[in-house]
Amino acid sequence: MSTAQSKNITPRSQDFAAWYQDVVLQGDMAEPAEVVKGCMVIKPNGYAVWEGLQAELDRRFKATGHKNVYFPLFIPESFLRREAEHVEGFSPELAVVTIAGGKKLEEPYVVRPTSETIIGHFFARWIQSWRDLPVLVNQWANVVRWELRTRMFLRTTEFLWQEGHTAHGSEEEAREEAVRMLHIYADVAEEVMAMPVIRGVKSRAEKFAGAQRSYCIEAMMQNGLALQAGTSHELGQNFGKAFDVKYQSKEGTLEYVWQTSWGVSTRLIGGLIMTHSDDKGLVLPPRLAPVKAVIVPIFRKEEEREKVLEAANRMAADLNGAGLTAEVDAREGYNPGHKFFHWEQRGVPVTIELGPRDLAAGTAVVKRRDLGTKESRPKEGLAAAVRGILDEMQSSMLATGRERLKANTVTASSMGEVEEILSSATAEKGGGKFVMAHIKDDPACDAKVKEFRASVRCIPLKDENDGPGKCIVTGETVAQRSVIAKAY
Amino acid sequence: MSTAQSKNITPRSQDFAAWYQDVVLQGDMAEPAEVVKGCMVIKPNGYAVWEGLQAELDRRFKATGHKNVYFPLFIPESFLRREAEHVEGFSPELAVVTIAGGKKLEEPYVVRPTSETIIGHFFARWIQSWRDLPVLVNQWANVVRWELRTRMFLRTTEFLWQEGHTAHGSEEEAREEAVRMLHIYADVAEEVMAMPVIRGVKSRAEKFAGAQRSYCIEAMMQNGLALQAGTSHELGQNFGKAFDVKYQSKEGTLEYVWQTSWGVSTRLIGGLIMTHSDDKGLVLPPRLAPVKAVIVPIFRKEEEREKVLEAANRMAADLNGAGLTAEVDAREGYNPGHKFFHWEQRGVPVTIELGPRDLAAGTAVVKRRDLGTKESRPKEGLAAAVRGILDEMQSSMLATGRERLKANTVTASSMGEVEEILSSATAEKGGGKFVMAHIKDDPACDAKVKEFRASVRCIPLKDENDGPGKCIVTGETVAQRSVIAKAY
Repeated sequence: MSTAQSKNITPRSQDFAAWYQDVVLQGDMAEPAEVVKGCMVIKPNGYAVWEGLQAELDRRFKATGHKNVYFPLFIPESFLRREAEHVEGFSPELAVVTIAGGKKLEEPYVVRPTSETIIGHFFARWIQSWRDLPVLVNQWANVVRWELRTRMFLRTTEFLWQEGHTAHGSEEEAREEAVRMLHIYADVAEEVMAMPVIRGVKSRAEKFAGAQRSYCIEAMMQNGLALQAGTSHELGQNFGKAFDVKYQSKEGTLEYVWQTSWGVSTRLIGGLIMTHSDDKGLVLPPRLAPVKAVIVPIFRKEEEREKVLEAANRMAADLNGAGLTAEVDAREGYNPGHKFFHWEQRGVPVTIELGPRDLAAGTAVVKRRDLGTKESRPKEGLAAAVRGILDEMQSSMLATGRERLKANTVTASSMGEVEEILSSATAEKGGGKFVMAHIKDDPACDAKVKEFRASVRCIPLKDENDGPGKCIVTGETVAQRSVIAKAY
Repeated sequence: MSTAQSKNITPRSQDFAAWYQDVVLQGDMAEPAEVVKGCMVIKPNGYAVWEGLQAELDRRFKATGHKNVYFPLFIPESFLRREAEHVEGFSPELAVVTIAGGKKLEEPYVVRPTSETIIGHFFARWIQSWRDLPVLVNQWANVVRWELRTRMFLRTTEFLWQEGHTAHGSEEEAREEAVRMLHIYADVAEEVMAMPVIRGVKSRAEKFAGAQRSYCIEAMMQNGLALQAGTSHELGQNFGKAFDVKYQSKEGTLEYVWQTSWGVSTRLIGGLIMTHSDDKGLVLPPRLAPVKAVIVPIFRKEEEREKVLEAANRMAADLNGAGLTAEVDAREGYNPGHKFFHWEQRGVPVTIELGPRDLAAGTAVVKRRDLGTKESRPKEGLAAAVRGILDEMQSSMLATGRERLKANTVTASSMGEVEEILSSATAEKGGGKFVMAHIKDDPACDAKVKEFRASVRCIPLKDENDGPGKCIVTGETVAQRSVIAKAY
């Protein structure tokens, strides 16, 4: 789409934040839309990755009985005020439409920061009896939260996401749903994105505004910082009461519904980039790469050109026939070195070099993006070989992430120790850790951690540590260690 | 999702507008979101149809070289003013964000009514040389236009759409692109939606605000009213000049790009409904029906129940295995009559009745939604038979639409005649016609037609009438007849 010269990328060791920005820009993922505060333009490669994520998520949502729907972008301002915690959480971040159709509106509309309130209104219309439950819907939408500090994909004032909303006849069923969706997120993060995550419960201080309990998946970036990659909330009866969503039970009593909501957003792409990319640019896990292989034809003389291009096109057709999206880079006016550099920065998993000598030998040189390894492979059976490389790359990327997470997770038994471990790490310098410590689930304890700009990320669903211990703030016994880290 | 009692549908002959509303509601397609002026909630069946349309369109966009991207929802107000016709056209319809993050904004943002302006800004950044051209992008997005009179799907203040935006190095290439996309829209309308359309050029009075020329597809609804179902615009160099989008040509000169934009929206679903549905409810062309077949198990005694359900599930598995999405309606507490009524209102193309007698005979009763015909079919080879019925239904629906269009298209040779033909038709009464008449492409002539609330719909790309003739307003010779009709 643009012949803008490829630029080199700031090394991670020099400036992690600048590296990230370079990878996003050079990878054709996004660019800042500085004329609209805190927004970005999602560019072709970035949007294609989002489409890949959408397809993987959407398939799983549908397989678990959810239907897609679409609710209005605008929400009457008064709706937000009906749930006390919710309005408090979102008020500072709202974009407000006060004029429409040339007139001042009697009641302003807020641009949805999330849709629990307006969906609550409709749930009240749709739900009368236990027979109407559960209601299991999801929407793919844009939302707006006026953030002060923004960073492409990780935190933008407008972002794309999906928000699932469900209503149930019992607390147990709602809890099962919230946990089910958390596991779906974790599955996509790990199996599709090759990004290992910790599944956990948010502390009370960190839970969603209006939720009874929030579940999350937390991933570790290459610099050791945490990224909240997805959340799933038990809303209890909070929104049911705020919007009067009642149903007649089998026993004939009138009950408020139990709700859940859950979402992941384009933020996932930021996590993907910071988990896998390197100093050469973007690295994409094969399952999410829009193009799996690019063939770069190599020739010097005009009579070689035609033969090589023909063979390259045939090879691409073979790979496409085998279900591996492949392209030939037949652009004129660029040398092969430039082309390899170009596709490397865009994270194409496999590049294939094809020249007259390969043609004569019946081979092609296959280069794997993550390790940079090159191998000559026979043309015969190339599709199977490439598929093998892609599979191997996918699992190796996940394994690398798992090792990193393990290597950078430490335990601590006092607040001093936690602070010492974490205070040296910043987004720019790297070296961040996940510190496992016993800490009481009390906003006052979270506040202590906030003093050195870290936070309680979650209480893991599965305690892989040493069970109960003494809180590093209050000394009280708590059931298990939590994850404390600096985070995006 | 809701057990709300199925209601009967107002017959078309009694009140076409009420019929439409009933079909939309009972078909689980959408419902009005009266708390957000002019908006709707798109419900599961409606959203699934939209997903079907998206998939069909998106595949064709990608096959013609377009890439998906995403631009911000908000546009600085000043951007709109840069193209004089554009701001005049859209100003009255804008929703404006004046407050964000708790503060009054220095420059308000408008919620995009369409994205030519903000995209023009980015094209100027991306395009420097002829090597950067063409730029071929598309976005799937929501847009907002503050309309006074709204109607679900047909005209809502917020709607979902895609907008393609391209930049080219020559007027010819831009024209080819605009026409190519029009034909893609027509192809989807006819081959997927089974909705015949006329491909044409908009009159100058009716073209898009800021375009040099607008192409459109116009469909005829069952009441004879026209529906503009898609548009494709040659923007000329208007936005190029407004946003300074210049490129260096091969010859080294600096030139403004030639742009196009094109879009279809959830309005298509309104057209789909008004083309095919009947007094029993929604009728969906098989290619867009999210569920192709529903099996309704029939039994009286408990011992029959298990056998029939087992056979129904096996049958559904067979159909699904053959790529035909099929479901078993195993809901308890509803009799078969209610179930057939339910699926009929939701437009499922084929319902299959399976009872103990069918089981014994090795058959099933297959009912086709559009004609209401019922046939007993052997269980053996049922998937192939159902596929045959669906194919036949798809082409028969298109043929019916074509016959209607032909039967209700008439010629006229004076304005009096045009008025007489059209003034009796209203959305409620039906009886609308497409009147083919010679009329000069001059806003003053369009205005004459507007006097009786009709409009010049388009000048067909292919003149299937009698060539040149005298304008019914000015008496001047014009090259061919235009379509004049009342429209949504």
